[in-house]
Amino acid sequence: MTKRNILLTPGPTPVPPEVLKVMAEPIFHHRTPRYRALFQEVSEDLKIVFRTARNVYTFTGSGTVAMEAGVVNFLSPQEKVVVLEVGKFGERWSKLAKAYQLNAIVLKTPYGETVTPEEVEKTLKLHPDAKAVYGTLCETSTGVLLDIEAIAKIVSKTKAIFVVDAISGLAADRLEMDQWGVDVVVSGSQKGLMIPPGLAFLAANGKAIALHQNAKLPRFYVDLAQYEKSLRDWDTPFTPALTLVLALQVALARIKAEGMEKVWSRTAELARKTRKMVHELGLELFAKRPANTLTAVKVPAGVDGEKLVSVMRDEKGVTMAGGQGEMKGKIFRISHMGFISETDVRTGIEALKETLTELQKAQSAKV
Amino acid sequence: MTKRNILLTPGPTPVPPEVLKVMAEPIFHHRTPRYRALFQEVSEDLKIVFRTARNVYTFTGSGTVAMEAGVVNFLSPQEKVVVLEVGKFGERWSKLAKAYQLNAIVLKTPYGETVTPEEVEKTLKLHPDAKAVYGTLCETSTGVLLDIEAIAKIVSKTKAIFVVDAISGLAADRLEMDQWGVDVVVSGSQKGLMIPPGLAFLAANGKAIALHQNAKLPRFYVDLAQYEKSLRDWDTPFTPALTLVLALQVALARIKAEGMEKVWSRTAELARKTRKMVHELGLELFAKRPANTLTAVKVPAGVDGEKLVSVMRDEKGVTMAGGQGEMKGKIFRISHMGFISETDVRTGIEALKETLTELQKAQSAKV
Repeated sequence: MTKRNILLTPGPTPVPPEVLKVMAEPIFHHRTPRYRALFQEVSEDLKIVFRTARNVYTFTGSGTVAMEAGVVNFLSPQEKVVVLEVGKFGERWSKLAKAYQLNAIVLKTPYGETVTPEEVEKTLKLHPDAKAVYGTLCETSTGVLLDIEAIAKIVSKTKAIFVVDAISGLAADRLEMDQWGVDVVVSGSQKGLMIPPGLAFLAANGKAIALHQNAKLPRFYVDLAQYEKSLRDWDTPFTPALTLVLALQVALARIKAEGMEKVWSRTAELARKTRKMVHELGLELFAKRPANTLTAVKVPAGVDGEKLVSVMRDEKGVTMAGGQGEMKGKIFRISHMGFISETDVRTGIEALKETLTELQKAQSAKV
Repeated sequence: MTKRNILLTPGPTPVPPEVLKVMAEPIFHHRTPRYRALFQEVSEDLKIVFRTARNVYTFTGSGTVAMEAGVVNFLSPQEKVVVLEVGKFGERWSKLAKAYQLNAIVLKTPYGETVTPEEVEKTLKLHPDAKAVYGTLCETSTGVLLDIEAIAKIVSKTKAIFVVDAISGLAADRLEMDQWGVDVVVSGSQKGLMIPPGLAFLAANGKAIALHQNAKLPRFYVDLAQYEKSLRDWDTPFTPALTLVLALQVALARIKAEGMEKVWSRTAELARKTRKMVHELGLELFAKRPANTLTAVKVPAGVDGEKLVSVMRDEKGVTMAGGQGEMKGKIFRISHMGFISETDVRTGIEALKETLTELQKAQSAKV
């Protein structure tokens, strides 16, 4: 008997079988017409997912490589940036700004809350010299969805570019790069794109590319000029993670066949059902403005949140994510993006119900 | 009928079937005891291949990520470094030095030649303020092997650290990091380690780590301090390329079972046989000091080198690498590292003989 193993984590997310299969095919060389045809196809298909007519650049790396690319390609030392910091991944933008000696104005909210477009507007009026605003589509650490459309409308009226981390939100929560006027979108492979971790992406529009021409921060591996030059021949400047590019081709074909509107509405529907099931268990959501990408739930009083996650994983065969950093033990997170099905979520919620009952029983036996 | 497809390129190199297979297994979450046990095993096993008792750090990225890590982690702006530039990958060190505003003293040789230990000694005497020497174990673009042991002996007497790019040479040409006193070794996954591209590695000794403490170049994704901290819990700071770490576990088990001495002697023997076969075809080696990792061969007069490579690939099912940059059309390269067998090389040489005859016949028909 194979042990049940349901993955409900917000990345890596489950990989469809036809995507897994292609990664076991014999390796081939990347400086060949075969690779260029493959890379042309995925580079074109990525535009459909990013909702942009601009080039999408592919890096081999974790999602953070694309975030770093979103900083070093557009700025010079000491320049002013605004960071929307609503959780751990917003904090990563601040850490990047610090590492690269930028002057960061940080709009920080308590975990579970979000920055309003009005606050962004006020801040940009106080800091008209800001060159960039850094935000997050879905803050994976808290399950919060930022109002990227409204914020983009405000930022687009200024000289600043709006750089959005859509690592977990892409192909899960709606993001319209060109239509909303988001200048730079970064993402990763192991979330809505349904392939294993190891590829990262960045799309940039004309306003961002204009900044790039004068950006003096030092860079090499993530220098967009090199990727732009190589992309003209459907190539990358450095050896790509070939097996993951093959996987991406299959996953993107799946997304194209379904269509982005359907991907978003299916994810939204599953998120709505998840929130309903969570409420029916008498549990509370953690996010004030919940994303469709994942649902963060407060651990009920008297329950050890870390134990909840490990019992579910090791005894029930359902892997959810616990809280990170300060939120450790206080929340758990259920994803419903990509290849995660309603059956997966229902089975997970059933296991959650059982586990909570068991832990609460053990707790009251102790008391 | 499956078309023959023999891969003789110096990266990606062929991946053993049991390694390919493991990449098609269902994905799992990386913040789990399962992943930590896996990552502990590969991190320990990597030390056997790097021949070091020090930690080996694993990055998700192309090999160039580890080269960049080998620069930004150890230096401050404007510091002096010596670059041994004997080919395209030596040039990459110079480009990195330039991108990070270092003062680079470049020891450049014509392609096919190598820098002597005496030249390094003389240069370090002229530049006692040099903080680092950057070299390459096997210069993949020309097939040249540098005398890393002798150069390390010289550099170790100075204050400078010796940073060696062993991306293509590791587990192919002998490299004894600790015994020879090499301070930093960087490598990649798609060469002697026999897995697909997408992981990069760096090992650093105490002399290098001491420099790291005061190195002021900006960095984030490749900052060793973050990797060192995570490694204490057998973890990485950013989501790792899980499928490739699984592949690495299987490939390293294979290398351990064979033993490093045997890996080196088998590769040396196959390289010797390849050079003999090349001579028997009346062809000349390009490298003055040939590596065992790969053999670079001069394209004979009157033959179109680019056509030679494409005809062999598209008509004979044997992929060799052509020349890069200035060497385009002038050389071709046959690898014999990792999973490449004597049968693969013999079949490749047979196809080469046929193709050369056909191209020369076509050429004389034209004349």
